[in-house]
Amino acid sequence: MTTATTAERAQGTVRLDYERLVDFTTEVFTRRGLPPQRAAIAARALVHGDLTGVTSHGLANLTRLYLPLFDDERADPRAELEIVSDRGAALLVDSHRALGLWSAHAAMDLALERAATHGVALVSLYNGTHFGCAGHFTAHAAEQGAIGFLAGNCGGQRIIRPPGAAEPLLGTNPFSIAVPVGAHPAYVLDMSTTVVPTGRIRAAARAGREIPEGWLADDAGRPVTDPHAFDRGEAHLQWLGGRPQTGSFKGYALSLMVETLAALLPGAELGPVSTAGRDDNIGFFTLAIAPGRLRAQADFLKESEELFDALLNARAVDPAQPVRYPGWPEAQHADEARAHGVPLTADLFAELEEVARDLSLTAPTPLGGTR
Amino acid sequence: MTTATTAERAQGTVRLDYERLVDFTTEVFTRRGLPPQRAAIAARALVHGDLTGVTSHGLANLTRLYLPLFDDERADPRAELEIVSDRGAALLVDSHRALGLWSAHAAMDLALERAATHGVALVSLYNGTHFGCAGHFTAHAAEQGAIGFLAGNCGGQRIIRPPGAAEPLLGTNPFSIAVPVGAHPAYVLDMSTTVVPTGRIRAAARAGREIPEGWLADDAGRPVTDPHAFDRGEAHLQWLGGRPQTGSFKGYALSLMVETLAALLPGAELGPVSTAGRDDNIGFFTLAIAPGRLRAQADFLKESEELFDALLNARAVDPAQPVRYPGWPEAQHADEARAHGVPLTADLFAELEEVARDLSLTAPTPLGGTR
Repeated sequence: MTTATTAERAQGTVRLDYERLVDFTTEVFTRRGLPPQRAAIAARALVHGDLTGVTSHGLANLTRLYLPLFDDERADPRAELEIVSDRGAALLVDSHRALGLWSAHAAMDLALERAATHGVALVSLYNGTHFGCAGHFTAHAAEQGAIGFLAGNCGGQRIIRPPGAAEPLLGTNPFSIAVPVGAHPAYVLDMSTTVVPTGRIRAAARAGREIPEGWLADDAGRPVTDPHAFDRGEAHLQWLGGRPQTGSFKGYALSLMVETLAALLPGAELGPVSTAGRDDNIGFFTLAIAPGRLRAQADFLKESEELFDALLNARAVDPAQPVRYPGWPEAQHADEARAHGVPLTADLFAELEEVARDLSLTAPTPLGGTR
Repeated sequence: MTTATTAERAQGTVRLDYERLVDFTTEVFTRRGLPPQRAAIAARALVHGDLTGVTSHGLANLTRLYLPLFDDERADPRAELEIVSDRGAALLVDSHRALGLWSAHAAMDLALERAATHGVALVSLYNGTHFGCAGHFTAHAAEQGAIGFLAGNCGGQRIIRPPGAAEPLLGTNPFSIAVPVGAHPAYVLDMSTTVVPTGRIRAAARAGREIPEGWLADDAGRPVTDPHAFDRGEAHLQWLGGRPQTGSFKGYALSLMVETLAALLPGAELGPVSTAGRDDNIGFFTLAIAPGRLRAQADFLKESEELFDALLNARAVDPAQPVRYPGWPEAQHADEARAHGVPLTADLFAELEEVARDLSLTAPTPLGGTR
């Protein structure tokens, strides 16, 4: 059992055994009404954020986002997925407000099963709720040797202004793709269509950190570096691409790609036309591709490894900073966290202890006794 | 017949009847060995750039890119598409170096035909050549009431450096999606994964214009505004997202999405592992979705129109600059060009006249007699 580093102690970081943390989160979801197997799937999806270092989408959202969804009956812990249309390779699914952390996994499994027959399969889902890290579900596809793609809109949530608009109409609209890479970690793109997702703004606000220029701007387009300005409504989140001259229309266009694929296609809530204005009836676009149905799977995997090998071995500007690809740093973080414990801030750990008290559960014990 | 405006005359712009321009381009391709029907399809794809105002991907590339492909036998004008694997909803196709301006259209038609049965269909293609404006082919899907997605890598071409790399390994890797929007023009995203495609850098160089900061940077990361620096090898094209803090890793990640979907999946040439280093054996990823196989097509179209209506009617910062969506300005440009002639620079028109002389064809006559 490795103890926390001196730097971590100074920052008030604790480390928790990954499997113990998943078990605890599973118990929390079970107490909130999820069937145990489903709770375990949702728990891994949520802890994925902390495991891979994407802390904006991890356990920090348990008390902020997921438990309130049950309190307000905006998520139904026992809802089943209903297949509304079935064309073999393409399905329309009503998720009846099932927890997105589970339903996105179930939708991907369904797509994988159908892609194994048809080569490609699409599961288009409405009445969804938040799924957390999109990359968790696509990485699951890559673990099966498939290509996984997942996009989710933000239901009726309106946070971002289209270029030239004086009102927000769209959400951050994340999407992800993952591709297996032979012996290396999967390539995983997992991105919002804004410069950063809102979770990173709020994480900076919680940590009392300034944010870089380019994330937020005020009404006049001037950069804002105080993350609190966002929730005060004094600053707007910027599109990927930044200014119009450097591609903000591409970030906006990508957001509409997610809005149309994920929400328009199945008939979920659309941000720009929503009167509710909140993130209910989210739509998911889940696509799986089985390369082995088109050509020899072994050739595909070998060529994938060659592709990503070439990137890893590229001549670096700074040899101390080798070239990497999306998914690699997250896999490194996960390996380290599996070996030495998942790092959580002391504040987040205190939140989990409070959840444990409320539900009469035992919170996990930090490794190395830092508390 | 409308005459060119005074401003256009001053800039040396001529206007040509759209159908006459397509016929002329069809004759050029026919003379270069394409069967007439195929030549007509390729001609519309090429003129699409000028018709919609995306001049970097229009007729300017006839003498720079497409005719040399035939001269060097890098494109085969009569090659047929060969279906190598067929899983109903997913196909692997060897295009045997057929002209991409035609083969991308044929691949999309094949995907549309299969999607009409299966709801979704994928055509994965290798041995492709340049297809020009990706949005031309996805817009064709939208005209049929379907969602079209097309991505193409750049074969072995290596132009862009991965973040932290001291050597270029990837191409600009364009992709496009189009969605039908009821009574409005289709929503069409058509983007490279860099801030701009190389065509816009070269168009600025030809026009003798400086480029905005953010498109190119030198070895030290300093912005470069001289477009000629790119082809001199003194400046590097930047990823969408700009700096690492503002999302350059997302542009890089999107480029790898295109590289894996378009080229790794079918086994086409991969930029990072290529020894040829040029844009042969391009891979295409062609996906079509038939919304009407999942739910009522009329409901889908009605809700699409509502979605894009809401964007068009958004409160604007400047009422003189109403909010638009990708595909709208291009459709406006096309309407205007169909009514009053497709605008071409006098230099480009002179190139077409030279092509006409070389092939003993008659070049189109400019409308309004500006020459």
